[in-house]
Amino acid sequence: MPTLFRKVKDVKSYLKSLRSSGGNNLSVGFVPTMGYLHEGHMELIKKCKLQNDITVVSIYVNPLQFGEGEDYQKYPRDLERDLAMCQEAGVDVVFAPTDEEVYPQVPKTKIHVEGISHVLEGAFRPNHFSGVALIVLKLFNIIQPDRAYFGEKDFQQLKLIQRLVNDLSYPVEIVPVPTVRDKDGLALSSRNTYLKEQERESALSIYRSFLIAQKLFRAGNTKAQDIKEAVRDYISRHPHVKRIDYVEIVDEDFNIKEEVSEGDRVLVAVWIGDTRLIDNWRLSYEEV
Amino acid sequence: MPTLFRKVKDVKSYLKSLRSSGGNNLSVGFVPTMGYLHEGHMELIKKCKLQNDITVVSIYVNPLQFGEGEDYQKYPRDLERDLAMCQEAGVDVVFAPTDEEVYPQVPKTKIHVEGISHVLEGAFRPNHFSGVALIVLKLFNIIQPDRAYFGEKDFQQLKLIQRLVNDLSYPVEIVPVPTVRDKDGLALSSRNTYLKEQERESALSIYRSFLIAQKLFRAGNTKAQDIKEAVRDYISRHPHVKRIDYVEIVDEDFNIKEEVSEGDRVLVAVWIGDTRLIDNWRLSYEEV
Repeated sequence: MPTLFRKVKDVKSYLKSLRSSGGNNLSVGFVPTMGYLHEGHMELIKKCKLQNDITVVSIYVNPLQFGEGEDYQKYPRDLERDLAMCQEAGVDVVFAPTDEEVYPQVPKTKIHVEGISHVLEGAFRPNHFSGVALIVLKLFNIIQPDRAYFGEKDFQQLKLIQRLVNDLSYPVEIVPVPTVRDKDGLALSSRNTYLKEQERESALSIYRSFLIAQKLFRAGNTKAQDIKEAVRDYISRHPHVKRIDYVEIVDEDFNIKEEVSEGDRVLVAVWIGDTRLIDNWRLSYEEV
Repeated sequence: MPTLFRKVKDVKSYLKSLRSSGGNNLSVGFVPTMGYLHEGHMELIKKCKLQNDITVVSIYVNPLQFGEGEDYQKYPRDLERDLAMCQEAGVDVVFAPTDEEVYPQVPKTKIHVEGISHVLEGAFRPNHFSGVALIVLKLFNIIQPDRAYFGEKDFQQLKLIQRLVNDLSYPVEIVPVPTVRDKDGLALSSRNTYLKEQERESALSIYRSFLIAQKLFRAGNTKAQDIKEAVRDYISRHPHVKRIDYVEIVDEDFNIKEEVSEGDRVLVAVWIGDTRLIDNWRLSYEEV
């Protein structure tokens, strides 16, 4: 069983003694999550275990990164199941703090990255990335990992964290991990649990639209406008698609592209019924 | 002579080996400065040396915390003199990085603390505290000190840093150090070097206005309005006083006060000729 901590000071002192027992040469890898773990998280943990002596997973549904009217209350939670999965995966330490531990006082600190925090996801979820930045940096300061693992599924979040870490010279290596998809292509997400069966069917249009985008790109069409329209058109043709918040193409530095080149990402946010899904796809010349 | 480093990776690896040579039990104290050291800095260093095994001083005039039209270019610099003073004071490590080392790319990260970043100093110097927050957190991440020392002279900056450290759970203890004053009461500042003789005489009105404030408070007047007016009136009566940016009274949490109690601070920013000076005073029942 991984050792479970609920208090900041306890996990800190445990990690400190663990480190010093290894002559302070043990590397610590860190996987921050909101729990309700799935195979996507397991990929992060697997990579973390490969690269580090100690693997720490945090489980915390961070209220600050949810907006008003969002799904903070109904976000799925199941600590026992998560702990069992962590045990199965060989996680060493689970840190699952209470709100009072994380925010003994309401934070007044706001952290933004220009060009990332307020566009796309950040435009539709105004305080989301400030909440993400705060909790991730805070967890870095508590765990002090050598490496931290983030899924490419939340591509904008990944770019935010990478930029924060560079701008602030955080002594942590950010390791991106490719999105894990179900056999039918649906990107794994704890929020998939909200989908009714027929909605799930419609949600597959997201992945399939990426295949169309990829096909266009491989055929030599590098106009972002064309690719985005094809994606949007394809998805919107499906039932239960209530709204498409955005379809955009950005490069590795999160610049919005007009002419697309290999490695650029198609990013989408789609409402399937009452469920908001995000996903993204790296355009390449490879066959899918 | 303290060991001088100009590169991030060099100071990091030196401190790492220094720490591990002491079985990772050596404490590191950190004094961030913009150089052109004076007795105020020496107080920070003295306290740092008392409380830590290793004392690190950084010397860096951070362009990001200067606004347009401010004194970034003419800010006094004298590394040789600073190094000699650091040697005299027994500093172990001086980190004096180049701009390219600190900002290999233009940072996109903006950090604000609500209720602190944009009031008083922050209202008159709009990007100042975002620049301060960025460089201080960055230096914390590079040096990874156990304790860091800040003068109360820059009271708003001290409150900003304390709040950031709390909100972000930085593993560093912030140690405030009382303002050092010349015999005649002028708070020490590298910017005092800008003052012509007669201007310096007028600048003493700031300290003297604090004595008036203190006298009023001790006499039982707890109306912030009265105390602020007395301070403003007294200072403005002096020659070379070009403008008073603000006179305000705040509590330890930087809330603006109407009814004053012991421990509250009078904060002022005054232009003496072309020199902008800030200073503050803790109101108490003690005789001065």
